[in-house]
Amino acid sequence: MYSLLDNFRVVEGASFIAAPSCTLHLAQMGAEVIRFDHVRGGPDYGRWPCTDDGVSLYWEGLNKGKKSIAIDLGRPQGRELAVQLATAPGEGRGMFVTNYPVGGFLSHDNLAKHRADMITVRVMGWADGSTAFDYTVNAGIGYPLLTGPPSLGDAPVNHVLPAWDLLAGSHAAMALVSAERHRQTSGAGQEILVPLGDVGLSTLGNLGHVAEASVLGQQRDRLGNDLYGAFGRDFQAADGRRVMICAITARQWNSLLEALRVVDKVNAVQDELGVSFERDEGLRFDHRDRLMPIIADAVAQHSSTQLARVLDEQNVCWEPYRSMREAVAEKCQPDPHNDHALFRNVEHPSGHTYPTPGTSFMAMGMQRQTPLRAPRLGEHTDEVLAQVLGMAGHEIGRLHDDGVVAGA
Amino acid sequence: MYSLLDNFRVVEGASFIAAPSCTLHLAQMGAEVIRFDHVRGGPDYGRWPCTDDGVSLYWEGLNKGKKSIAIDLGRPQGRELAVQLATAPGEGRGMFVTNYPVGGFLSHDNLAKHRADMITVRVMGWADGSTAFDYTVNAGIGYPLLTGPPSLGDAPVNHVLPAWDLLAGSHAAMALVSAERHRQTSGAGQEILVPLGDVGLSTLGNLGHVAEASVLGQQRDRLGNDLYGAFGRDFQAADGRRVMICAITARQWNSLLEALRVVDKVNAVQDELGVSFERDEGLRFDHRDRLMPIIADAVAQHSSTQLARVLDEQNVCWEPYRSMREAVAEKCQPDPHNDHALFRNVEHPSGHTYPTPGTSFMAMGMQRQTPLRAPRLGEHTDEVLAQVLGMAGHEIGRLHDDGVVAGA
Repeated sequence: MYSLLDNFRVVEGASFIAAPSCTLHLAQMGAEVIRFDHVRGGPDYGRWPCTDDGVSLYWEGLNKGKKSIAIDLGRPQGRELAVQLATAPGEGRGMFVTNYPVGGFLSHDNLAKHRADMITVRVMGWADGSTAFDYTVNAGIGYPLLTGPPSLGDAPVNHVLPAWDLLAGSHAAMALVSAERHRQTSGAGQEILVPLGDVGLSTLGNLGHVAEASVLGQQRDRLGNDLYGAFGRDFQAADGRRVMICAITARQWNSLLEALRVVDKVNAVQDELGVSFERDEGLRFDHRDRLMPIIADAVAQHSSTQLARVLDEQNVCWEPYRSMREAVAEKCQPDPHNDHALFRNVEHPSGHTYPTPGTSFMAMGMQRQTPLRAPRLGEHTDEVLAQVLGMAGHEIGRLHDDGVVAGA
Repeated sequence: MYSLLDNFRVVEGASFIAAPSCTLHLAQMGAEVIRFDHVRGGPDYGRWPCTDDGVSLYWEGLNKGKKSIAIDLGRPQGRELAVQLATAPGEGRGMFVTNYPVGGFLSHDNLAKHRADMITVRVMGWADGSTAFDYTVNAGIGYPLLTGPPSLGDAPVNHVLPAWDLLAGSHAAMALVSAERHRQTSGAGQEILVPLGDVGLSTLGNLGHVAEASVLGQQRDRLGNDLYGAFGRDFQAADGRRVMICAITARQWNSLLEALRVVDKVNAVQDELGVSFERDEGLRFDHRDRLMPIIADAVAQHSSTQLARVLDEQNVCWEPYRSMREAVAEKCQPDPHNDHALFRNVEHPSGHTYPTPGTSFMAMGMQRQTPLRAPRLGEHTDEVLAQVLGMAGHEIGRLHDDGVVAGA
């Protein structure tokens, strides 16, 4: 984490991936993030994967570096506390991130009654208010029918990565920081709605899919692992190990042919067809039925070790397919000799110490701080009530006695 | 688009998806974005999909609302112009987004010689500087071997959505706005590196995959379309139409059973196993071999129209699988009666008018402006030279005459 967002406090009332990942980004950029949860934990508190003791490793991953206050949200007094936290006064405060329903006690209108310049960021399903999760948005916008080999016919392939949740989280963070910047000069608050559906549909527009359907009246075929519009696919080395190779620029294409010593074979195809694959990556896609076998044969003549050597010598853009366990073992380990390393070993509330990432980016002129662990549920209840709401010890004690709040 | 980012100018020297999508977000939030390209266009200028005339619909989608200046970057004078643009003085300026190599004339160190408080955001491949694209990062971190039906054995399934590019773009935008906020008080510039690889690997950490492998010594099986750790999958209606249904919360689970009238059948399974599916979504996953057939049978007894009615009546979380063409027809059309609608019809440089999205989020208190079209290559060359670099007409004319710049 880095100290980029000074004097920036966000209150979170949320669960699952999208909204919690928004505030995770903010926390790792130096913001103070206070997450409130129901006293028994929100609906994501036991989400898989879990340890044998039932501690959610998912929750631990998504709530790193946040403060946790546990409130009985079923009671009016608890709800009032949540509203007070979100709307507490001061510069760089008054920001709330949620996936609670648009109406109700955490509506922007209700919060804005307590603080006129409130910034509320609400992740939701479809823009019209109907329910959606990442998995249903993905089904509804077309990618599952384009994913996977054509042999699957019309059977959809869901993605495993919750891409729309993650994109919604980072879009929400980007919007919130921008809205706070705007508030600094205008004094104006904002209600910002981030529908997962609009994250998906705007992506279809930004990547040209909407134009493709509207202008060309077409959509892509199910291409398996072939890269659309350029050269790329999975190949198999002599020992069965699979690699992804792609060549988008002219340099990458030439490097690949050099590395695999297939320049002559490809030239023969070019001469026959009267085209230049170097100058137009689209032609490499159009004629992939001619090019793929040449590359596949050459790859299959190398062991994966030999292949790695010849491809790296020519700076070809490639990567071995790794299982997730291999990826964790090879790519997610701390490096004590690198101040900017992504992972450090951190002990978490589950009692386990494991490699833990900070921000996805490096701020080269700042010190990269060790990522903070997730809180235990309610670990900061008393601290938050005292520091944010200015409550005295006996008041906090009474809230505990009355069961309105709980500690860790 | 919205006017959130006032007095915020970013210069872009980039291509493909990640960095251009970063500045697309910024432009749609009101920033002034000036993209420079080589006089014949960058390596993404002809990227598919293209119109019959060879205009890239992909480029049009990713560069909406930006200004374009075309420069001969192969010549020292052209390179100097690019540096001058990126480092031009003034508050809310001095921000550069790129995917050019770390070294060379657009290095942060070189830019910082011209402007000490420069903020440079550089999207790259792996953090160690080695080349990677979205497709190779994805291969390297494990998702392709978890995606798709188990019948595929150990064959990888690449994603079609360039999720790592898109996430890198929004992470870069979030980091840039945060760095500019920091500069406002500290006066300090930043060099920010956003490796696609670290975007992927940090995601593995945030979602619990690293902990899963490190603590539990395990990774997920290839689950096909089954939702990990809860209830969800694709099902097929009587008319063959497929739907995604999921139930994560207790309410969603109960709604699904009510809608499909299978409460009794599920209760019988609960009684037999001595468990409560309502209270623990993990049990729904553990016993999915018992639950899935019940739901699948019930779904198969409905036509897709009937199914939609009974599921919607109970607010079940579901969605029909759509082809991308269906998604564009049903979900991407402008709605003149909704001021906050995502899509509006915009005429683009290709000459085609088609539905065009603005920001993925809605700022409810601001006016949503019509999305701007992408520029023609070099459309703003003269305007940018005059306004940003203060050049006189005869100086600009000489640059044209010398072939250092080009217009549209």
